[in-house]
Amino acid sequence: MTNAMRPHAAAFHFIKALSIGIVLGIPLPSAGAALAPQLAITGATIIDGTGKAPLHDGMVLIEDGRITAVGPARAVTVPAGARKLDARGKFVIPGLMDAHVHIVFASLEQLIRYEGRYQDLIFGPVQFTLRNGVTTLFDTWGPREALVKVRDMINAGQAIGSRIYLAGNAVGWGGPFSPDFNATDASRVSAEFVKRTNGTWEQGTGRALLWLPPEQLRPVVREYLRKDIDFLKYAGTSHNTAHFSYPTFSPRQQKVIVEEGRRAGFSVQAHTLSVETLDMAVDAGVDIVAHGDNTGPVASIPDETIRKLVDRKVAVAIRPFRQKFLDDIEAREKANPLPASWGEASFFVGLMKNEKINQRKMIKAGVTTLFSTDGVPVSHAQAASDPGMARFALGEAHFDALVALEEDGMDRMEILKSATSNIAKAYKLDARIGTVEAGKIADLLILDRDPLDSAQNYRSIHAVIKDGKVVDRERLSAAAVSDTD
Amino acid sequence: MTNAMRPHAAAFHFIKALSIGIVLGIPLPSAGAALAPQLAITGATIIDGTGKAPLHDGMVLIEDGRITAVGPARAVTVPAGARKLDARGKFVIPGLMDAHVHIVFASLEQLIRYEGRYQDLIFGPVQFTLRNGVTTLFDTWGPREALVKVRDMINAGQAIGSRIYLAGNAVGWGGPFSPDFNATDASRVSAEFVKRTNGTWEQGTGRALLWLPPEQLRPVVREYLRKDIDFLKYAGTSHNTAHFSYPTFSPRQQKVIVEEGRRAGFSVQAHTLSVETLDMAVDAGVDIVAHGDNTGPVASIPDETIRKLVDRKVAVAIRPFRQKFLDDIEAREKANPLPASWGEASFFVGLMKNEKINQRKMIKAGVTTLFSTDGVPVSHAQAASDPGMARFALGEAHFDALVALEEDGMDRMEILKSATSNIAKAYKLDARIGTVEAGKIADLLILDRDPLDSAQNYRSIHAVIKDGKVVDRERLSAAAVSDTD
Amino acid sequence: MTNAMRPHAAAFHFIKALSIGIVLGIPLPSAGAALAPQLAITGATIIDGTGKAPLHDGMVLIEDGRITAVGPARAVTVPAGARKLDARGKFVIPGLMDAHVHIVFASLEQLIRYEGRYQDLIFGPVQFTLRNGVTTLFDTWGPREALVKVRDMINAGQAIGSRIYLAGNAVGWGGPFSPDFNATDASRVSAEFVKRTNGTWEQGTGRALLWLPPEQLRPVVREYLRKDIDFLKYAGTSHNTAHFSYPTFSPRQQKVIVEEGRRAGFSVQAHTLSVETLDMAVDAGVDIVAHGDNTGPVASIPDETIRKLVDRKVAVAIRPFRQKFLDDIEAREKANPLPASWGEASFFVGLMKNEKINQRKMIKAGVTTLFSTDGVPVSHAQAASDPGMARFALGEAHFDALVALEEDGMDRMEILKSATSNIAKAYKLDARIGTVEAGKIADLLILDRDPLDSAQNYRSIHAVIKDGKVVDRERLSAAAVSDTD
Amino acid sequence: MTNAMRPHAAAFHFIKALSIGIVLGIPLPSAGAALAPQLAITGATIIDGTGKAPLHDGMVLIEDGRITAVGPARAVTVPAGARKLDARGKFVIPGLMDAHVHIVFASLEQLIRYEGRYQDLIFGPVQFTLRNGVTTLFDTWGPREALVKVRDMINAGQAIGSRIYLAGNAVGWGGPFSPDFNATDASRVSAEFVKRTNGTWEQGTGRALLWLPPEQLRPVVREYLRKDIDFLKYAGTSHNTAHFSYPTFSPRQQKVIVEEGRRAGFSVQAHTLSVETLDMAVDAGVDIVAHGDNTGPVASIPDETIRKLVDRKVAVAIRPFRQKFLDDIEAREKANPLPASWGEASFFVGLMKNEKINQRKMIKAGVTTLFSTDGVPVSHAQAASDPGMARFALGEAHFDALVALEEDGMDRMEILKSATSNIAKAYKLDARIGTVEAGKIADLLILDRDPLDSAQNYRSIHAVIKDGKVVDRERLSAAAVSDTD
Repeated sequence: MTNAMRPHAAAFHFIKALSIGIVLGIPLPSAGAALAPQLAITGATIIDGTGKAPLHDGMVLIEDGRITAVGPARAVTVPAGARKLDARGKFVIPGLMDAHVHIVFASLEQLIRYEGRYQDLIFGPVQFTLRNGVTTLFDTWGPREALVKVRDMINAGQAIGSRIYLAGNAVGWGGPFSPDFNATDASRVSAEFVKRTNGTWEQGTGRALLWLPPEQLRPVVREYLRKDIDFLKYAGTSHNTAHFSYPTFSPRQQKVIVEEGRRAGFSVQAHTLSVETLDMAVDAGVDIVAHGDNTGPVASIPDETIRKLVDRKVAVAIRPFRQKFLDDIEAREKANPLPASWGEASFFVGLMKNEKINQRKMIKAGVTTLFSTDGVPVSHAQAASDPGMARFALGEAHFDALVALEEDGMDRMEILKSATSNIAKAYKLDARIGTVEAGKIADLLILDRDPLDSAQNYRSIHAVIKDGKVVDRERLSAAAVSDTD
Repeated sequence: MTNAMRPHAAAFHFIKALSIGIVLGIPLPSAGAALAPQLAITGATIIDGTGKAPLHDGMVLIEDGRITAVGPARAVTVPAGARKLDARGKFVIPGLMDAHVHIVFASLEQLIRYEGRYQDLIFGPVQFTLRNGVTTLFDTWGPREALVKVRDMINAGQAIGSRIYLAGNAVGWGGPFSPDFNATDASRVSAEFVKRTNGTWEQGTGRALLWLPPEQLRPVVREYLRKDIDFLKYAGTSHNTAHFSYPTFSPRQQKVIVEEGRRAGFSVQAHTLSVETLDMAVDAGVDIVAHGDNTGPVASIPDETIRKLVDRKVAVAIRPFRQKFLDDIEAREKANPLPASWGEASFFVGLMKNEKINQRKMIKAGVTTLFSTDGVPVSHAQAASDPGMARFALGEAHFDALVALEEDGMDRMEILKSATSNIAKAYKLDARIGTVEAGKIADLLILDRDPLDSAQNYRSIHAVIKDGKVVDRERLSAAAVSDTD
Repeated sequence: MTNAMRPHAAAFHFIKALSIGIVLGIPLPSAGAALAPQLAITGATIIDGTGKAPLHDGMVLIEDGRITAVGPARAVTVPAGARKLDARGKFVIPGLMDAHVHIVFASLEQLIRYEGRYQDLIFGPVQFTLRNGVTTLFDTWGPREALVKVRDMINAGQAIGSRIYLAGNAVGWGGPFSPDFNATDASRVSAEFVKRTNGTWEQGTGRALLWLPPEQLRPVVREYLRKDIDFLKYAGTSHNTAHFSYPTFSPRQQKVIVEEGRRAGFSVQAHTLSVETLDMAVDAGVDIVAHGDNTGPVASIPDETIRKLVDRKVAVAIRPFRQKFLDDIEAREKANPLPASWGEASFFVGLMKNEKINQRKMIKAGVTTLFSTDGVPVSHAQAASDPGMARFALGEAHFDALVALEEDGMDRMEILKSATSNIAKAYKLDARIGTVEAGKIADLLILDRDPLDSAQNYRSIHAVIKDGKVVDRERLSAAAVSDTD
Repeated sequence: MTNAMRPHAAAFHFIKALSIGIVLGIPLPSAGAALAPQLAITGATIIDGTGKAPLHDGMVLIEDGRITAVGPARAVTVPAGARKLDARGKFVIPGLMDAHVHIVFASLEQLIRYEGRYQDLIFGPVQFTLRNGVTTLFDTWGPREALVKVRDMINAGQAIGSRIYLAGNAVGWGGPFSPDFNATDASRVSAEFVKRTNGTWEQGTGRALLWLPPEQLRPVVREYLRKDIDFLKYAGTSHNTAHFSYPTFSPRQQKVIVEEGRRAGFSVQAHTLSVETLDMAVDAGVDIVAHGDNTGPVASIPDETIRKLVDRKVAVAIRPFRQKFLDDIEAREKANPLPASWGEASFFVGLMKNEKINQRKMIKAGVTTLFSTDGVPVSHAQAASDPGMARFALGEAHFDALVALEEDGMDRMEILKSATSNIAKAYKLDARIGTVEAGKIADLLILDRDPLDSAQNYRSIHAVIKDGKVVDRERLSAAAVSDTD
């Protein structure tokens, strides 16, 4: 469905046709090639994501999309009709996860063009991520209905792509045309469109919530929790760069949100961008802190807060990046200083330097880290011309980010857990996904080279298996978004 | 010194000459007309600002700028050489105070033109306020050095104008070109100028402080407290309308700021714009909450928080306005809806409706209120053409705002206290100013009509006395800023 | 097809369905109700648009969409099967024409949303114009292909609306995102979209043409003339208000354009906005000057140029407006002065004052005037809230504009000619349309009251006949664009 | 007066003091060091600028600022008291001229800060140009009064700097806040300031003139000619890049302007940016065409127009640049494409490519060219970081531009004439300046190396002599503007 990548005028109807095709079961790129009822992966080294020592010459047995047995090849009996996948010399690991992405991060043009059909912006990126081994995405801010639609199509086998879990809005943020994102563009379009679009994102949980005393806030949160979402996220700070350091909810408001999320059985997370908001979120009792490694350009996380994270077992969704990336940004910024409004050119550089310090502190202290990229659809051309964007290239950036963890001193087994079982646990999904164990959904990668030898080896994808079927990677989109978009 | 009102090119040098004139003691408009060593105001009804019943046929004796005696005319002996001021039928009250103003609120053009001499923007407004009976101004955000300069010139008798107390920066806010104010303009001017100007306002206490963990914040605040300021203010929320509801400092940061302010002997205040930030500031232990009556367009202050204000004796600097003012704004907004970026046209109207509700709740509950206008220099033409600006017209808006308190049901004696002794106490200046009592600085108004009959009577100014001298009101500027500026 | 008026997300597909319905002949609002082969309008006073005296108790016979006979009722024999339309006491006139409109004048939002299907922006407005008696529109700047598509659908009876003649681009102007229109918005969208959209409008005849020496310009113009357009228009000035007074093509370039247009058999017109560009266009030999009455805020047309217009029989498409309209604008502008960038607030007022002077001079001198509104789709709500827009309300503004001509002293018979036969002649279409004469296409209005008694009577539409069929006005859109768009 | 280069707050008063110092004759950097009544430059090779063969071992005798004799050393008798300047092995040429500069090209910040004293922006740049050998500047758009002030101070020996001739406004252009320059900034400042500033530049000859029919235009031009200007320039096109190709005045308006300029005895020039406007200006009879080599990115000058320039002896002020400069710009533009509003990234590159083609055509055909840089004050830092700005660096750019002429194939004697006597003639000043001949003002350069050997040798300045005095170059400003401004 490469055409989903070219959403220009002439291609709109074709895309729609394709989407319908998928719905109707027409054999478009799908797992159709692997309909065998049973699959036995034999001979590989199995690194199951639990932290246990690798199992050499192992066997993974899959039935109806689930792992039914894992063990030494000789100890597991392959059922008669099972298809055999010879993986000798290769490595089986759980499918990778990205704990924090935004599959839809639409431009003004896209917001208008795709209104009423934002799902058309989703089909492409989730193919690309699946192709490159990320079998599960956690969407932490996006258009809820469209994400639900594609999530359900994928789960029903009507479309192919990474497994999606979604938060919908980050409670407390306004929509794309609010000052948390791009209020300037609001003046370019009709008030009606602004209202519709912000509403599509906000789902009744926008910035007005900040003004509510705790007991007026509670029913609003409760109502949101009745909608179809997979986990609860709230804004711990603004998203607007110019107000990065500003908290949003008071401690007592945060407590109400966490209580309600808990009561509804959800994993609850906060988005924080400073030491103080990180600390407040932990005090409020969250399961996950998104951007907890980002504490601004001035200060890194004090030991006391690091200890709190460990003691209370709060997971932090971090965004690792390589030192070279930072060096490139710094060089670029020196050559082309940022506009005066930033006060000082080193804002982003300072911020990233602290991010790295914080990541290393957390790794060393044993904070539960969740691997993430904060990925958004970025074209290959954009990533090539703007080094700053490469870091966010959904479906591509995770390869370098995994290597960054290695650079930062994380144990290689921990790296794997950080990108699989840690995430599943923090999102309370460990009964279903995250490890290569009997009973789990069969989302696996087969690598040519050992990821415990080098994090570079995550690139050596031999096969992607999702829901127990071998993915026909060649038929999936080879970009999150086309270069001309 | 009406020329201070016409700061156009041609007038610059003249203004400077005048300023120098003032410094050198050349008899420009000053208190020179009332150099008599002793002054006896006789026969008036004295409402001393303490809340005590009015004293009819009273006498106020003033010497060396201080009140030396207050009592029944017959009980106080007028010294031989004393000048007598016959005030029979009139009413003596303490000079009015405005608990929250911004004497300098400069446009881009003014920031550039007056760089290095912002004091030239101050001479005019403080004459106008004095002329209209406000003998003391509390400047809660402005260019510290320039304000100190004019404050000291006035105190030394080298210039004439209202008595100034100043906070300098509101700790945590950026300068005029920061996103807390007008970051857009920053792109129009040189980076060097932006830096210099923001620095002039921030005094080392800008937005970067939000990123500091408490113990890194403490020494920064302490250093600021060593500068020449009169009270300490910190940002409880952003100042940017688009982020009105966003807190700034965490509770533990606020505690540090309040502790340090206290230790330095200052009255400490926070600027808040929501229920949650108001509540946090009270918990942090502030003396004053500026804008405590402004809790956004969505919710008014819950009873619990009102009670806290009363119990902990926290004073709230409120901005009263008349119902007619709100009605006018509402009608105007209906005719010319705000741009789409506001989400809903009723933002300001909603906010002001809650402001009124909050003011009435506080009055009813007995919260200590401090009268204020949030005044800035507004020309008569501006005030006439833009009803929204009239509310902020420094030197003029207080008359209507006092009447608004009456409309809102405040007892007339409380109104007077709210604009005099309450403010002096909250700012810890009650040993020096705020009442007509022996030992206090002789800042008084003589009114033709009784302010306890009607708040309209504050307009009936017969004489303004400052530092014990009758002010020659006719020679003072009759506008805060000229119409052509 | 009222739904064409509600192009919001949910309605898109319905609109498309409707359009297809029209194409397939499904009896949507169309002339289907009047399929009688012959129609005889009897008893009316016929004012045929040639300037001849009205014919009382006349008869118009129509067959196959053409007028086959016009004469005294008693002198014309009504064929046997003809349907009779009793119009005693009424007035038959040619269908009104508007010599200068822009059926598509799209916002940024519409440019994106309707890309690839701009025709969906056309169906509604042309119904509204037809409903209100304007049977023919001359579109002088718009998206050529979309206009051609709707023009042809209407001509083929597949859609219903006013007859369209179109220029496509005004040669020399850039598209919607060029500095001739809205270059600012270009920075908000992708470069690819800007290029596609400008290209859709420019059709290879954009601003680069101004740089071409005459003999390099010639083949470019010739190539454009090979495309499907109905007349040739070129830019005599910029369209950008900030550059209103700037000419575009040099005299020798203009000569080349006019020569080529002539050679291709087209009526040629220039858009001018100053005395000098008007004079140059006349010298270049144009048939029509659009906006010839608009010569800026400073000077009106000198007698010498007026004489040239008469001597060379150049028609001027004028935009009449009522004095009250100007008075309203002037009052409004005084209350809310324009931003400083305009230099002086009276720009538009000054311009309109000269426009009126010029119109009166032309009427008096006998210049051939073509009635026009410069109409664009304006919602009723917009027209109500912004008096300045009411003047441009396509489908509505012509009623007041016809009255304005009367106010300006134009003879009532001339008013009718100005809005019918004058236009047909200037556009070289007088063999087909513009008068009630045998052989012409049967586009007629039947009015209840005599337009030679009062120009107000153009509002008294009893029936609109187009292509010989009575239009079912009630089924046509009652607005050019809905209030919520 | 290096301090003029640091106009920051603290330095204002010092600058003013310096200016006053100059006025009062206090011996600041001036020609005071060379007050000898007579000066004899002996032994040099004299290339007098007329095109005559160089005179070896020549002698130039100077008295009272004028050249009194030039000839072979042995043939001229050195007067008794004359100071001798031994220049054996060196080369004497006329002082260089720049036919087209803008000494003041102020930012928004400068327009505000220097209002009422724009001369403070002039002192620095004209020292730098003199230091680097440009003894005469022709300012073709600037604040008339301030330029007159500095011109007269320099001529009276009260300040030191290059000789200035000025046009004031280019008739037809608006001021700095008009759409010809930066209308966007107008919305950032007060309407009063915009009006004052535009008026300071326009001097009554702004954009409104385009609307005037010829005979209404004539008296306005005549009135402007009564003001103190040195030559007459009018706008042949807009100055706004977005409207580069748009003409301004009609042919008959241009004729009126040229007639009036002639009648007043002035050299008249037009600013043109396209083939058509160049051709129109020539037809109108101008003496000089500024930017005649700039005909946009699409077409170069046709032979016919080149011939016209030669036949009618119209001089063209060209802006030569080196091929390397163009290559750098092109590479940069490829790496960082311009925003979409430009339509195509190659706008500037295309324009410069044609500029070069045009320059070469003119050189080959023998058009009279006037050397110019279009120079504006550019700091060394700016020039270093932005290659596009280096071309306009007043006081520095001329060195490379002279070499560019050599690259483009101009004869080296012609290069010298292009930068000296050609300019003097075209501006009708050849009786006073431009050659090393008896009777002329003694503005000379002494070079270490022969400019007829290489245009690089113009950099080898040994001495600058102005008004017959040796300039103390070391004391002059070494930058047009400081790096921190």
